Amino acid sequence: MTQKIPVGVLGATGAVGQRFIQLLADHPWFEVAELLASDRSAGKSYREACVWRLATPLPERVASMTVRGPEDALSAPIQFSGLDSSVAGELEARLAARGHAVVSNARNHRMADDVPLLIPEVNPDHLDALAVQRKRTGAGYVVTNPNCSVIGLAMALAPLDRAFGLESAAVVTLQALSGAGYPGVASLDVADNVIPYIGGGEEEKIEAEPRKILGRFAAGAFTPADFTLSASVHRVAVSDGHTMAIFARLRSKASAADAKRALAGFRGEPQDKELPSAPRAPIHVLDAPDRPQPRLDRDREGGMAVSVGRVREDGLFQLKLEALVHNTIRGAAGAAILNAELLRERGLLP
Amino acid sequence: MTQKIPVGVLGATGAVGQRFIQLLADHPWFEVAELLASDRSAGKSYREACVWRLATPLPERVASMTVRGPEDALSAPIQFSGLDSSVAGELEARLAARGHAVVSNARNHRMADDVPLLIPEVNPDHLDALAVQRKRTGAGYVVTNPNCSVIGLAMALAPLDRAFGLESAAVVTLQALSGAGYPGVASLDVADNVIPYIGGGEEEKIEAEPRKILGRFAAGAFTPADFTLSASVHRVAVSDGHTMAIFARLRSKASAADAKRALAGFRGEPQDKELPSAPRAPIHVLDAPDRPQPRLDRDREGGMAVSVGRVREDGLFQLKLEALVHNTIRGAAGAAILNAELLRERGLLP
Amino acid sequence: MTQKIPVGVLGATGAVGQRFIQLLADHPWFEVAELLASDRSAGKSYREACVWRLATPLPERVASMTVRGPEDALSAPIQFSGLDSSVAGELEARLAARGHAVVSNARNHRMADDVPLLIPEVNPDHLDALAVQRKRTGAGYVVTNPNCSVIGLAMALAPLDRAFGLESAAVVTLQALSGAGYPGVASLDVADNVIPYIGGGEEEKIEAEPRKILGRFAAGAFTPADFTLSASVHRVAVSDGHTMAIFARLRSKASAADAKRALAGFRGEPQDKELPSAPRAPIHVLDAPDRPQPRLDRDREGGMAVSVGRVREDGLFQLKLEALVHNTIRGAAGAAILNAELLRERGLLP
Amino acid sequence: MTQKIPVGVLGATGAVGQRFIQLLADHPWFEVAELLASDRSAGKSYREACVWRLATPLPERVASMTVRGPEDALSAPIQFSGLDSSVAGELEARLAARGHAVVSNARNHRMADDVPLLIPEVNPDHLDALAVQRKRTGAGYVVTNPNCSVIGLAMALAPLDRAFGLESAAVVTLQALSGAGYPGVASLDVADNVIPYIGGGEEEKIEAEPRKILGRFAAGAFTPADFTLSASVHRVAVSDGHTMAIFARLRSKASAADAKRALAGFRGEPQDKELPSAPRAPIHVLDAPDRPQPRLDRDREGGMAVSVGRVREDGLFQLKLEALVHNTIRGAAGAAILNAELLRERGLLP
Repeated sequence: MTQKIPVGVLGATGAVGQRFIQLLADHPWFEVAELLASDRSAGKSYREACVWRLATPLPERVASMTVRGPEDALSAPIQFSGLDSSVAGELEARLAARGHAVVSNARNHRMADDVPLLIPEVNPDHLDALAVQRKRTGAGYVVTNPNCSVIGLAMALAPLDRAFGLESAAVVTLQALSGAGYPGVASLDVADNVIPYIGGGEEEKIEAEPRKILGRFAAGAFTPADFTLSASVHRVAVSDGHTMAIFARLRSKASAADAKRALAGFRGEPQDKELPSAPRAPIHVLDAPDRPQPRLDRDREGGMAVSVGRVREDGLFQLKLEALVHNTIRGAAGAAILNAELLRERGLLP
Repeated sequence: MTQKIPVGVLGATGAVGQRFIQLLADHPWFEVAELLASDRSAGKSYREACVWRLATPLPERVASMTVRGPEDALSAPIQFSGLDSSVAGELEARLAARGHAVVSNARNHRMADDVPLLIPEVNPDHLDALAVQRKRTGAGYVVTNPNCSVIGLAMALAPLDRAFGLESAAVVTLQALSGAGYPGVASLDVADNVIPYIGGGEEEKIEAEPRKILGRFAAGAFTPADFTLSASVHRVAVSDGHTMAIFARLRSKASAADAKRALAGFRGEPQDKELPSAPRAPIHVLDAPDRPQPRLDRDREGGMAVSVGRVREDGLFQLKLEALVHNTIRGAAGAAILNAELLRERGLLP
Repeated sequence: MTQKIPVGVLGATGAVGQRFIQLLADHPWFEVAELLASDRSAGKSYREACVWRLATPLPERVASMTVRGPEDALSAPIQFSGLDSSVAGELEARLAARGHAVVSNARNHRMADDVPLLIPEVNPDHLDALAVQRKRTGAGYVVTNPNCSVIGLAMALAPLDRAFGLESAAVVTLQALSGAGYPGVASLDVADNVIPYIGGGEEEKIEAEPRKILGRFAAGAFTPADFTLSASVHRVAVSDGHTMAIFARLRSKASAADAKRALAGFRGEPQDKELPSAPRAPIHVLDAPDRPQPRLDRDREGGMAVSVGRVREDGLFQLKLEALVHNTIRGAAGAAILNAELLRERGLLP
Repeated sequence: MTQKIPVGVLGATGAVGQRFIQLLADHPWFEVAELLASDRSAGKSYREACVWRLATPLPERVASMTVRGPEDALSAPIQFSGLDSSVAGELEARLAARGHAVVSNARNHRMADDVPLLIPEVNPDHLDALAVQRKRTGAGYVVTNPNCSVIGLAMALAPLDRAFGLESAAVVTLQALSGAGYPGVASLDVADNVIPYIGGGEEEKIEAEPRKILGRFAAGAFTPADFTLSASVHRVAVSDGHTMAIFARLRSKASAADAKRALAGFRGEPQDKELPSAPRAPIHVLDAPDRPQPRLDRDREGGMAVSVGRVREDGLFQLKLEALVHNTIRGAAGAAILNAELLRERGLLP
């Protein structure tokens, strides 16, 4: 590749925006060329506009770039969106209409009829919806990645669904602080505490999105998968890494060993095509009885692998397991970047 | 009551032992008269033998008492046991055989055929098993309270089972550090972390004990209740207070409002008899969408009430709810003290 | 006392305001009669206006009171102020001019020429400044308590200064989250972290206020004490309780034993007069090598005692010690209530 | 370099031992060839013997190596020691006598008359003591690195001492949990808490070691530097990274800007020789008012740089500043590895 593809980052000063900039710093295909944030930041250098809160240094090249505002015209073909949902809906639609490929982490368009809710290992065929969408927009498109918990959940369920048929699942989440953005959760609220609630319709998203993801796109329309989900969510005092306790009822019988084999062997297009951000193994199956753990496992394969452990048989459902996903990498910015890599690989960029 | 009943505390220097001493400091009926700990502590004053780790001062009267060792004879009729399970089995049996009422928090005898696994609000009739047990021992007896998570779970399930019939339930726990005793969990293991595992057969206990508790004792034998439980346990960085996400399938239909009414109205013998440690309402039903929370709710009614919140209908099970129990008060020492109060009220003390 | 004195709480919905309401719930002399908060809350019931974040229940009587706004007239003679410093200056001055005794925790008037910066055990004679102040206002007055760290620091230094003469001191604070109010510090900022900084001129306040407190009021003016202080502040992930490492250089020689004697024997007017909120011993000197600790010691005497430990001799300064103060009780609302009790005891209420 | 130098790791299963193995995994000069641990681990594979607690995977090559016991003969010329001080004294002396270069993190030999207490940037000339030591042992030698806090402190003080002459300093530490090894601090002891104490003579080490490090080795003997230190230590709930508040009195006048220039410009032999583990800048001077912070700054330059911030003038001392060191990398295993690199560079290996 002789020249990198210029990309923009929407919502560049926020928590997800910062992750985009961190993960794109040495990307082999993409290069940050434009930053967009709110009017409060527009016109400032990124260094001034942003309080960088990641543990790696703010890349110098990006630090000196000037931040644009919501009304400014953009030119990069790919626009990564870490926008807040209060503004993402309209702004992303406008950019799609102007011909950009908007690769978004925001929730606004995820469930739309012609928008892929994409996990490249799981449902790359959902990209067929882009032909429908482009007819509507007349130009560009929006591609979304799932909610930060849902990515881990859907990746853990996909191999089980393929191999054994998923009938229903219950999931209880223990979600990290970074999932709430910044400033997000007040420290007093989680000091020596757990909050059994997350706003913004978190449980509803977790119950709905996996059915679209594991469903089919055919004949111009999405058909959701036929299983029932129930979710109960919690915020815990962990910086990064969403832990999930999953109970799964399957249509055909699977021992714990069967399930572990299906999970560990799971591979998809990102692995076949060796996309730059693809983990070698999307799912790491851990045998130690007390894993996965956020601090020890969230950074596997640069935060792009989902860890699964404690796969065991269950008398009520059929299987129980724990899953862990790095919520701001595989669960947000890294997910969108992998989506963009797949778009390029498939020749779908504008 | 002109004179208080002398009581002993077994395992007096441990985490549960300290709670016994704290909660008994101003008890209207009972008075700490004997302390027993391991050989390492025997012969020392309690002040010397114990590193007091509670936020209220060590009671002066107890501080100067001399700790006895495992082989020493005891004389108090009631012996509260906070012993570690590695020694509780044999020592408690020996004391029962010598005529003591052993009111134990240890797990060893909980599932025995003639030992009540008692929650005074839920199954006071299980005390009928004492007649059987005393025939066996020829003298005293052991009465146990459930595992620290199970008390909260069983108290939340009991009113639902009574009103609507429980068919099955799944529970995911977020358990506090104090549940592991002292030193317990290494700080490095929970710093910025969650551990999806608790040793000692925690999940098995949570799946088994509620069936005994909500079952019947009749014709000299226990019959476990007829429902299925599945548990998935976690250790989180909270000092005190076990949080539980519960999914419940009921035999007859119950709306969220029905369930809340059944929970809030739950009362039992401790309330009728106004036992000294009884909460006025065993279950506090909270309406705020983000409650219960350990730091804010664990101390309700001196830590003796279980808090329940987020009672909502569910498409997979029938109901979802959150429960919280102070694991070292209602879930351990306070539970045993309430058990002893019921024993006295019923005239069952030796 | 046949009838309680009605009091108002300014900034009633904030973190300090909630502590006022909690601590005044069963006060023998005072009764909450008026609540004032911002225009956003005015007209609502306190229950609606406030997200109660304390671990004791919101008192029912207060919950149903209607919150007034900044422009509303108030009638209670005592107004406790937990106002934010952005509004406290003007509003407190206006209420003083209207004849109220404003007993404030806000920083705005602390260093004013005729305003007592009061710790009843330390400088009750500073109340002489009220005569001067009332001449200025023509009616009521403002009495302030120190910054939440300074109260602990000044109470630990006062007995040493009296007995041995303080020449200089360095103090490093490890301050609790509640010191920043609510929402205050973002949880992501303190997760697995320490912040070596507190805004709002915290170090300057800690270096200046103790000199006024330990100084004299004579001939109508304050003369600050003649010692030098240096402070370095940190925010740590603790809910309540400011810990301070203090180095002190004294004018006359004092062994560690001398210092401990002076600290442990410290008493003042609140103890002599047995004011309702006065701790029996203002300073608890702890001998265990690893105390004081926030979680174990902050609640001594209902949070009104300062704990001191690790008093040891030092080759660079002369003494080193650790002090701990409950920052929202003795360091804020409790301090103001004790101030008001002294005002009443001395017959200085309007 | 055609072939790597084989090295051993003593205390291989412990917290520091694991860091050695992690940091040596891809070292350009050294290769782990031998592992030694207690008798309990001897004979097992490292994978079996060790509970790996770092967030990077256990290197496969090392995992399958067999662990040796304390009595087994070793052959690698360099032996890195992460031994506990209870056994390090004798075992390290024995290995030195057998001709090994023992590069130790243990405290036992640090203050010995002919043992360098080495920070390669600060006192590489102290390696002259090895000639004396080798005469004594007749063969190999022990080289030590300082206490985990002292490395950060001495590196922050060295440039100030060189440029302006250090007269005295006070330091208050906020030390991470990993500094206590594993299992180390009980989680209940630090939950919502600070412990103002660290055992093992921590304050004494911090007050003594910097004087040796910044002193001279001449005419066959060490002369400690002529300044006074006072330390006050705390354990805080942070996984890695010791924070220090430092007050420094200098012999000649230095503005904050002067001090920052001296600190930022600090370089030493590791930088000149471009040793593999050397940070490009040993000290990162941060300008943001709230830095350094453990979570954000401990990993600078792979954890080998010390971060300094809040450099400001002070009325009591002359300067105040904050320093941060990654206690298990620059403060332990990484320090020893850099020491070994300097030994090789200087041709001092056996």
